Amino acid sequence: MVTLPRSASPSPDLAISTLGPARIASPLAELLDNSRTSEHYVDEDDKVLLDDTLAGITARGVPASELPGMEPCGPRRRIFFDPAKTRAAVVTCGGLCPGLNDVIAGLVRTLTYHYRVRRVIGIRNGYQGFVPSYGHDVVDLTPESVRDIATDGGTVLGTSRGHQDPDEIVDCLERLHVNVLFVVGGDGSMRGAMRIAATVAERGLMIAVVGIPKTIDNDIPYIDQSFGFQTAFSHASDAIRAARVEATSTANGIGLVKLMGRHSGFIASYAALARSGADVVLIPEVPFGLEGEGGLLAHLRRRVQERGHAVVVVAEGAGQELLGHDPDADASGNARLGDIGPYLRRRIGDHFADAGIETSIRYIDPSYAIRSVPANPYDSVYCVRLSQAAVHAAMSGRTEMVVGRYRRRFVHVPMAAAVSRRNQVDPHGDLWMAVLESTGQPVAFA
Amino acid sequence: MVTLPRSASPSPDLAISTLGPARIASPLAELLDNSRTSEHYVDEDDKVLLDDTLAGITARGVPASELPGMEPCGPRRRIFFDPAKTRAAVVTCGGLCPGLNDVIAGLVRTLTYHYRVRRVIGIRNGYQGFVPSYGHDVVDLTPESVRDIATDGGTVLGTSRGHQDPDEIVDCLERLHVNVLFVVGGDGSMRGAMRIAATVAERGLMIAVVGIPKTIDNDIPYIDQSFGFQTAFSHASDAIRAARVEATSTANGIGLVKLMGRHSGFIASYAALARSGADVVLIPEVPFGLEGEGGLLAHLRRRVQERGHAVVVVAEGAGQELLGHDPDADASGNARLGDIGPYLRRRIGDHFADAGIETSIRYIDPSYAIRSVPANPYDSVYCVRLSQAAVHAAMSGRTEMVVGRYRRRFVHVPMAAAVSRRNQVDPHGDLWMAVLESTGQPVAFA
Amino acid sequence: MVTLPRSASPSPDLAISTLGPARIASPLAELLDNSRTSEHYVDEDDKVLLDDTLAGITARGVPASELPGMEPCGPRRRIFFDPAKTRAAVVTCGGLCPGLNDVIAGLVRTLTYHYRVRRVIGIRNGYQGFVPSYGHDVVDLTPESVRDIATDGGTVLGTSRGHQDPDEIVDCLERLHVNVLFVVGGDGSMRGAMRIAATVAERGLMIAVVGIPKTIDNDIPYIDQSFGFQTAFSHASDAIRAARVEATSTANGIGLVKLMGRHSGFIASYAALARSGADVVLIPEVPFGLEGEGGLLAHLRRRVQERGHAVVVVAEGAGQELLGHDPDADASGNARLGDIGPYLRRRIGDHFADAGIETSIRYIDPSYAIRSVPANPYDSVYCVRLSQAAVHAAMSGRTEMVVGRYRRRFVHVPMAAAVSRRNQVDPHGDLWMAVLESTGQPVAFA
Amino acid sequence: MVTLPRSASPSPDLAISTLGPARIASPLAELLDNSRTSEHYVDEDDKVLLDDTLAGITARGVPASELPGMEPCGPRRRIFFDPAKTRAAVVTCGGLCPGLNDVIAGLVRTLTYHYRVRRVIGIRNGYQGFVPSYGHDVVDLTPESVRDIATDGGTVLGTSRGHQDPDEIVDCLERLHVNVLFVVGGDGSMRGAMRIAATVAERGLMIAVVGIPKTIDNDIPYIDQSFGFQTAFSHASDAIRAARVEATSTANGIGLVKLMGRHSGFIASYAALARSGADVVLIPEVPFGLEGEGGLLAHLRRRVQERGHAVVVVAEGAGQELLGHDPDADASGNARLGDIGPYLRRRIGDHFADAGIETSIRYIDPSYAIRSVPANPYDSVYCVRLSQAAVHAAMSGRTEMVVGRYRRRFVHVPMAAAVSRRNQVDPHGDLWMAVLESTGQPVAFA
Repeated sequence: MVTLPRSASPSPDLAISTLGPARIASPLAELLDNSRTSEHYVDEDDKVLLDDTLAGITARGVPASELPGMEPCGPRRRIFFDPAKTRAAVVTCGGLCPGLNDVIAGLVRTLTYHYRVRRVIGIRNGYQGFVPSYGHDVVDLTPESVRDIATDGGTVLGTSRGHQDPDEIVDCLERLHVNVLFVVGGDGSMRGAMRIAATVAERGLMIAVVGIPKTIDNDIPYIDQSFGFQTAFSHASDAIRAARVEATSTANGIGLVKLMGRHSGFIASYAALARSGADVVLIPEVPFGLEGEGGLLAHLRRRVQERGHAVVVVAEGAGQELLGHDPDADASGNARLGDIGPYLRRRIGDHFADAGIETSIRYIDPSYAIRSVPANPYDSVYCVRLSQAAVHAAMSGRTEMVVGRYRRRFVHVPMAAAVSRRNQVDPHGDLWMAVLESTGQPVAFA
Repeated sequence: MVTLPRSASPSPDLAISTLGPARIASPLAELLDNSRTSEHYVDEDDKVLLDDTLAGITARGVPASELPGMEPCGPRRRIFFDPAKTRAAVVTCGGLCPGLNDVIAGLVRTLTYHYRVRRVIGIRNGYQGFVPSYGHDVVDLTPESVRDIATDGGTVLGTSRGHQDPDEIVDCLERLHVNVLFVVGGDGSMRGAMRIAATVAERGLMIAVVGIPKTIDNDIPYIDQSFGFQTAFSHASDAIRAARVEATSTANGIGLVKLMGRHSGFIASYAALARSGADVVLIPEVPFGLEGEGGLLAHLRRRVQERGHAVVVVAEGAGQELLGHDPDADASGNARLGDIGPYLRRRIGDHFADAGIETSIRYIDPSYAIRSVPANPYDSVYCVRLSQAAVHAAMSGRTEMVVGRYRRRFVHVPMAAAVSRRNQVDPHGDLWMAVLESTGQPVAFA
Repeated sequence: MVTLPRSASPSPDLAISTLGPARIASPLAELLDNSRTSEHYVDEDDKVLLDDTLAGITARGVPASELPGMEPCGPRRRIFFDPAKTRAAVVTCGGLCPGLNDVIAGLVRTLTYHYRVRRVIGIRNGYQGFVPSYGHDVVDLTPESVRDIATDGGTVLGTSRGHQDPDEIVDCLERLHVNVLFVVGGDGSMRGAMRIAATVAERGLMIAVVGIPKTIDNDIPYIDQSFGFQTAFSHASDAIRAARVEATSTANGIGLVKLMGRHSGFIASYAALARSGADVVLIPEVPFGLEGEGGLLAHLRRRVQERGHAVVVVAEGAGQELLGHDPDADASGNARLGDIGPYLRRRIGDHFADAGIETSIRYIDPSYAIRSVPANPYDSVYCVRLSQAAVHAAMSGRTEMVVGRYRRRFVHVPMAAAVSRRNQVDPHGDLWMAVLESTGQPVAFA
Repeated sequence: MVTLPRSASPSPDLAISTLGPARIASPLAELLDNSRTSEHYVDEDDKVLLDDTLAGITARGVPASELPGMEPCGPRRRIFFDPAKTRAAVVTCGGLCPGLNDVIAGLVRTLTYHYRVRRVIGIRNGYQGFVPSYGHDVVDLTPESVRDIATDGGTVLGTSRGHQDPDEIVDCLERLHVNVLFVVGGDGSMRGAMRIAATVAERGLMIAVVGIPKTIDNDIPYIDQSFGFQTAFSHASDAIRAARVEATSTANGIGLVKLMGRHSGFIASYAALARSGADVVLIPEVPFGLEGEGGLLAHLRRRVQERGHAVVVVAEGAGQELLGHDPDADASGNARLGDIGPYLRRRIGDHFADAGIETSIRYIDPSYAIRSVPANPYDSVYCVRLSQAAVHAAMSGRTEMVVGRYRRRFVHVPMAAAVSRRNQVDPHGDLWMAVLESTGQPVAFA
């Protein structure tokens, strides 16, 4: 039976669902020296304020205790599940992202070493792994079996896109006697996890469903930066540098790099800022026009004429208004995007040909090469800490929520809030301003 | 004439000094399309709250408007210096840190492209470069001359440790007609910058002194993470991995790695969390004992007997209580630390020899190799954004302050606050808890 | 006036053309301490045997002195050009390859420091740079201007494909008073260099034309390994690893990587051997069939069914017999290849669809990202040594030849020999045998 | 019973010992398609000539068939051991070197997949693993257990220095029913392997002892380059670059880097050539003096005065004549070297202090960090091919020999020849000449 949102949370959309009253966290007490660690337990009533600016707080006009905020992550003095009887499961869903194996390993280690949970089950190939007709076996995950997995990119559990019937999934959870389910996936997968949690609640089961949100695009609200993002933009900046080398090595050379970013230009913006030599950055948040003296093509032509070369970085979701939209969605429910990369290559080529300028265009699309690399040390640490936070949340009975870092605090975010909208680059904020200053491109192409 | 702290700041230690009333920022208006960028100017009255937890805010018992907070960074609608008449200078002080060249390049680019400042002067070899008797020339810095400098680590301006007479420095600033001085350096250098600002004020000059705080140890208060820190701990984790490979390749092998961290164990903690295989992490914040069954040596012996090897990571400032202190300080005023690395190597060797266990100890001290690498892409972006923030602050007439990122916001921090104490790893916080869980070491060696 | 092939060379195709009698190499004598370096001069009559196996030598049935061999590289006691009056030019042609900037820098340094040549001219954008109608300026190259260029990939001189009129080129060389021309380029460019040398000879000029052969495909005969090759296959192995991670992370995942190698499968073979996890390697030297039980498609299907995934590496020139040939050639005279990558992707997809197996194919084409990286340390050293050898050859009056390393000796190879055929992977040799053992693929798909 | 050297070998020191007459290699015939691979078998009578220069061959004055040469590596049509009854063992000895795990994995794969040998035993911790009193277990090595080991540096088998009683070792081989022993180690270990082979012969056993020579110093005669060397000097060049950054970042900065190279300066020479910015390279092959105007110290002082900084690279075995020799040897029989690094640091510091020049010396000793890295892709491929060659040699009954690459051919080298002397940098050869040109240092310091 899922309890109602806790009354202490003044903002309904940030109330965390819990499974019920909790018991004293005795395993922690056994494991750790009480006299030194007792201060570490997180206070059940604390919260991290959503808005920490003076303007934000005074605008509310409410007492401080009623300001909207989020629960901090961490071990609770009282936990809900008895570790000795707890069985956990882990599933990874959607496209690859650096750090998946670090998260899996971190979950297994924290469950085993911190809480002494005895059985952790890995579900194979995303939500498909719950569905008998696919015929995927489950695997046992132990500290030994996950010891070296983070050396490689990808996910040792496999992944898949698309939804599966929540009833079949909960049937499987019941068959496997799973009490705690960790879902690592994007917003489509989190919507799937919400359906699982709803089915769990309908059946009156006591299964916590906790998410570790995954998006290489860094577009999750209430979260500073998604895991794998730093690794991704670091490799993306190498692709831009390669394009720049190609462009500068030929007369009138043009490099065109398509980067990840369906709805948000974070990877394109950060990669371009990392001394990569981009002349133009195009992101979904800032529409652009091609034609006319104020358009992208004329700007590029002037750059090439002035400097002898130009490098364009385009996020995959940019310029969709220039393409005919495809109304269909893919298996995960994501809208299909038109492919802006080849389109731009063609339009740029035609423009220079029409202008009688011999040019050479190199087009680089490093997507898969970036998604599949192992996490860099920063993301590796971040994944460990996220997975520790997720285990603490699940063991305390939280459900239908994800863990994340908000303004440097690890916090609990209700799944409904985490999928409510997307983080985007603020076209008036300092990140985009920094990009404009770095590239010298105009505020708008139109 | 330096004005008094602005009355809007409720917390005296976080009031920002400014040089005087400002003029409308016309160069920005010329440079950028007003209709799109006008929202970007930072509101003079906004602030970022220091404590964003419910507990923190209610404990104050004051109206929200009086909660302590910091000024956000960014371009102001009104600036103090007329860019056409502004001459800027940059000096880098103290030990090397990844990102120094990125900061220099970012300052030059923002001054030149955003504000159209015409002359930026580089001071050679730290504060020595201001003092005629050292005979160092100054250099002109232009976007062209700094174009590729960030490819290399170190600082193209050179650096030095130690103080110089503030009167000689201000004499030099006057001779060079400098209005805006950027000091990139550690807390010793910031204390020097405060003396420069004081001398400037005494003479009634209008010279803004703005700092970009540099510490590879990540120990600056009010700042999330110092530039170069991620690059540093990434390389440090390679050193731990090397030690682990050596340790596991011989019977009873022990790897001992000394990392940076005079007063703070951040590098040791993060590097150890980055799947590096450390068995024990020792940091300045957590004293440890060597002898007895609860001591480090017995723990190591047990680890080696159980697993055949062990890896110890020690921050340079850890365990100082075990060494005879040296009362002297170095040229920058930093206390001289005893060298814990060789001391531990000897004590561990003796302990195993006494126990009749043949062992092999590999000692790795990667300090200089880490300090001299170029910034990784994350730090590179961070340095660009810090330098943009520093330029905006200086042009608006702020002085005696540093820029930093606090809970993901770029903020102004008064120099006095930035040197008031050190950030340290909280022995009861989740970072150290994560380290303990990762290494499996006891909460205390005693 | 170009002299006839030297009579000491028994094998006509390996005789080196020289410009005429040489003078004593006095600059060397000045520069270096004679008593220690005198042994270093290369003996004019020595040679490195072409075939160093017993079988090879006895099969000839000639006295040892008549066995075919090549001149060793190195400084000669007698040189042809007076360094004080020598003007050198450098041109880079064709596609990018790691190490171009190292070669340029090495040529400039050796000409300047070793021989004290006072002027080295860089020709911009390949052979186009000689032709006035393109309007490219020449640049002066000095040790200072080339100091840091090798940090970046590409070529600071720019490059272009395609031939230019040799008369226009020699006109330009005469205008610039160039005595020594270094051409860095592929076999098309070397054919161009031969036309330049022929025109030089027709006009009775004394201009040495020396090549540093460039091919990322490692297909130059008489040369162990071309510069940039190790860097290239190292990065190529990363692409294979990425494909493997993608393939293993989904049910029935297939990774398909297209690598460089128009006529030779060296990059594909070496990259696959470098613990990259390829299941099948396809190279131009070994034709393959798709259909039938012995064909590639059935093999892949079996692999996927047994192991759950498969990774295919295909050199761009492989399987051309499966595609309709394009009779045209590109600007450099290279035959246009059909694009085997997308073709295979389609055929594999159709095959699995027909077999009713749901699969996921990731296609990676890392070509430009590989061509544009800086040389790794090995290639960097190799480029330095090649450029030193090229300068020694040119100063001694050799012409119409290239430098290379043959069985670990730096040797002179006549241009005619260097373009006479291509190095290819021997389908019966130990390299290909090692690939077959590593992948477990059958000896033939048919 | 070990047979006499085969009469076909004209040079006694290069005759390969074999265990006896061989049988037809039927497993190969089963495994591989005969019609295509039959040409791959190596001809028993072929050889690779030791000297492939005209001067070298004519100087002998003997028929070509009597010129000294080495057996090429590769599969033989006739093998000695019946794979179905063969049991192989692998031991790794001495210090770490990049590529050890690649060699182990390559041996296991070739034995298992190519020859279908059913049992491969790993001996733990070097020769100690054979001696019961050390109590180390043996481990079974399978393709599955070695699948990912090469991702890490070091050796999964562990290693140790020093000799063990050959009788105890052969007792152990007999107990384990080992027919084929692979020893991966340096020259001390190869001398140990010769004692094992001698004991095997005395007892009339049929155990092949084949070595894969390991030396990070690249000092094995008859071998182009030892495995791990390229990886090692690549990382060493990073250390030099770090020293250079430190040196150039301070006034009168001096960087001092000690690199591996007990008797040979290959690592120092190659690392210095790889655009690392060294001003002086010191190697064991070229003695140097410190004092006087022609000495190292005065040269450094002039460099610092001219350029403001200097970087010195010293191989660990250089300048031993300046130190008091230690007559003792370490456990492996290697002479103990005096530590030239700290000695030079002190002498340089004193010299500058005496000259009244304030300086800053950074000393970097990256030894362990270099030895423990994984092999780069080139070395990874090389290790695979060496291990394949070693297996072919052992299965054909060769013994008391090592495999290596000589002038780009994989060859068999008798152990006695491989330990007969050391490869060294020729002070009159083109490698050292390239270093002198690159650093601009004088031919001699004296």
